[in-house]
Amino acid sequence: MSDLVRKAAENLTAVRRSKPLIHNITNFVVMNTTANALLACGASPVMAHAENEVEEMAAFAGALVLNIGTLTDSWVASMLKAGRKATELGKPIVLDPVGSGATRLRTDAARSILAGTRVSVVRGNASEILSLSGQAAAIRGVDSCDSVGDAARVAGQLALELGVTLAITGPTDLVTDGRRTLFVEGGHALMPCVTGTGCTASALVGAFHAVDPDPVSAAATALAFFGLAGERAGARAEGPGSFQVHLLDALYAITPEELAAGCRIREERHV
Amino acid sequence: MSDLVRKAAENLTAVRRSKPLIHNITNFVVMNTTANALLACGASPVMAHAENEVEEMAAFAGALVLNIGTLTDSWVASMLKAGRKATELGKPIVLDPVGSGATRLRTDAARSILAGTRVSVVRGNASEILSLSGQAAAIRGVDSCDSVGDAARVAGQLALELGVTLAITGPTDLVTDGRRTLFVEGGHALMPCVTGTGCTASALVGAFHAVDPDPVSAAATALAFFGLAGERAGARAEGPGSFQVHLLDALYAITPEELAAGCRIREERHV
Amino acid sequence: MSDLVRKAAENLTAVRRSKPLIHNITNFVVMNTTANALLACGASPVMAHAENEVEEMAAFAGALVLNIGTLTDSWVASMLKAGRKATELGKPIVLDPVGSGATRLRTDAARSILAGTRVSVVRGNASEILSLSGQAAAIRGVDSCDSVGDAARVAGQLALELGVTLAITGPTDLVTDGRRTLFVEGGHALMPCVTGTGCTASALVGAFHAVDPDPVSAAATALAFFGLAGERAGARAEGPGSFQVHLLDALYAITPEELAAGCRIREERHV
Repeated sequence: MSDLVRKAAENLTAVRRSKPLIHNITNFVVMNTTANALLACGASPVMAHAENEVEEMAAFAGALVLNIGTLTDSWVASMLKAGRKATELGKPIVLDPVGSGATRLRTDAARSILAGTRVSVVRGNASEILSLSGQAAAIRGVDSCDSVGDAARVAGQLALELGVTLAITGPTDLVTDGRRTLFVEGGHALMPCVTGTGCTASALVGAFHAVDPDPVSAAATALAFFGLAGERAGARAEGPGSFQVHLLDALYAITPEELAAGCRIREERHV
Repeated sequence: MSDLVRKAAENLTAVRRSKPLIHNITNFVVMNTTANALLACGASPVMAHAENEVEEMAAFAGALVLNIGTLTDSWVASMLKAGRKATELGKPIVLDPVGSGATRLRTDAARSILAGTRVSVVRGNASEILSLSGQAAAIRGVDSCDSVGDAARVAGQLALELGVTLAITGPTDLVTDGRRTLFVEGGHALMPCVTGTGCTASALVGAFHAVDPDPVSAAATALAFFGLAGERAGARAEGPGSFQVHLLDALYAITPEELAAGCRIREERHV
Repeated sequence: MSDLVRKAAENLTAVRRSKPLIHNITNFVVMNTTANALLACGASPVMAHAENEVEEMAAFAGALVLNIGTLTDSWVASMLKAGRKATELGKPIVLDPVGSGATRLRTDAARSILAGTRVSVVRGNASEILSLSGQAAAIRGVDSCDSVGDAARVAGQLALELGVTLAITGPTDLVTDGRRTLFVEGGHALMPCVTGTGCTASALVGAFHAVDPDPVSAAATALAFFGLAGERAGARAEGPGSFQVHLLDALYAITPEELAAGCRIREERHV
């Protein structure tokens, strides 16, 4: 069993045993879905966004997950406040830059959070992640890369530029901090047909990061767990409605042993 | 195959091929449901309500859907801003006047949106739709009409007064712009036992309208599609929980050919 | 058949016949779930939180349910406004003090609502309920009580202090106004693995209270109904995803006769 496979099983065991409180400031569309996914995997979700409450809540939490969907200015202010408190207390912060690059409000919010707090992992799709670069024009897009190695190199540069671990999800997920790069396989074609699967991935990264201080292994093992749950759900689903039901059941049912057996993470070390 | 049946199949095909972005400013209760229904049928939902973001988002969208449930004044302001931008750019606007007639805030909001933007289709139940008339006292309620023809005449007058297409849903749906009137059959008795089925209908009208510029055929074919999905889901459901699951599965699975075969739209031309 | 068993069946029958409007000012995570649970059992949910709408809405309602999850100051203001109107009109108010005791905002909000309106029933878990006491230090926690009788005595004192009926849910639910104490059995181990089951319980108490003016029997019979639905759902579920589906189906399907047969409420009179 590789170190990462062992780590995946250990992280899932630790989440179920310690039930870390995950403080989410997230969008209206996925609040219920996210809370249920966190509960299903064994974590304790809390959603709280009031400016006069977020610092207290962040202080209780094992990790803070900031998600910028359905954003307004007052939510950005709360995210920054919660993020600064989490930074001060050394709690891991996961940022999901939903729609960054699509509108100015979202792009600016994602960049402000990166600038004003110590984000540990950013989980998004390729275009959201690329929008975070101050030198977008100079970078060749991950989407347009000729090869997987090429994409990894671009992502690695951006991770170093931002000083974070990037978890770029897609048919194959890529996790990199610029020094170490992991590829995660799994998931199912129905996942993009359900709203909030990306947001759920980010929340699960938060849960695993609450028990695993290494952002690269926390993110990769969480995505491997989610990918395996997606495969299981997809094997039984008749469409996106039943997929969601089976997905929650799978997040609840998968054992650490099953995760170790079904986990597909491979490593590529940078030169 | 009648023109409308062919149109229904064409619209579904077009939604799945072009995946139009549907910008929803909608209520908290149904955001998740609406996003999932749009994804299931092949469209691309986005929920965004910040005053400093809605114009940008509306500009990307194939249609704008405004839904006044769980309303506050700042949401009305955002809806008006998004609606004016969509009007300026000639994008179709669908209004769902949830609860109009029940409280002043809702009635005023619905009327402001009708006055301040160029709404293409209003989708609601009979009492919501009637509340939109400036001369409610003068009109005999659709609900109290003696015959279907009578109801259609009242609705047609109101459509002309408001300058919109009305899509009045109930056991039989009625779509009219005052010149042309279509009746749509379908659906299931469990639909009113699930929150947000009306809101979903409105969102699907938005998706079909994004690919079909004719508001009457866009609304009627969307409702026929939703009605067929409801029938399918109802045939398998054991209650409102399983109904929702099967409904999303049906919105995903129904093919254009199946829609053409199961579509029940009939036309009545006004004198 | 005991009086309470008969009352449970009567209350369910009355909810389904009169379809009381339940006005919820509740948190973003559970709005959809709550609305669907109320619809499934036969009530008519409405969610409305705008300060300039809540009085009108509360006036239409059969009961008002205030839930302080995902709280902000402006929501507290709306809850107080709605609560004062409901108090003035003699409508039952149910308070769900989600997270009271965890943060100052929540504790203060729960206490303000108790002070500023005439709350009839407070439904929460033991720690939330205990946080409502002005003399928390003096009271020995329900959680740490040596016996069920001990817990009931502490809860009864607090109910008298607050002048409300307390519905404390857990493996066994306890309902008391300080004079009369009922214990309700039921539910399933998957319930805490789904977000919002407590909030659903509070909303169902609202629905039963809208047709039953006695807060003690309204709360206990609603919890017995919910507990029976949970048992049924749990017997068929494979995890928290399918549990939710079966739970809504059960709330819809359970007949008054089945409720009378499956209802497990026992009474303990105080000395």
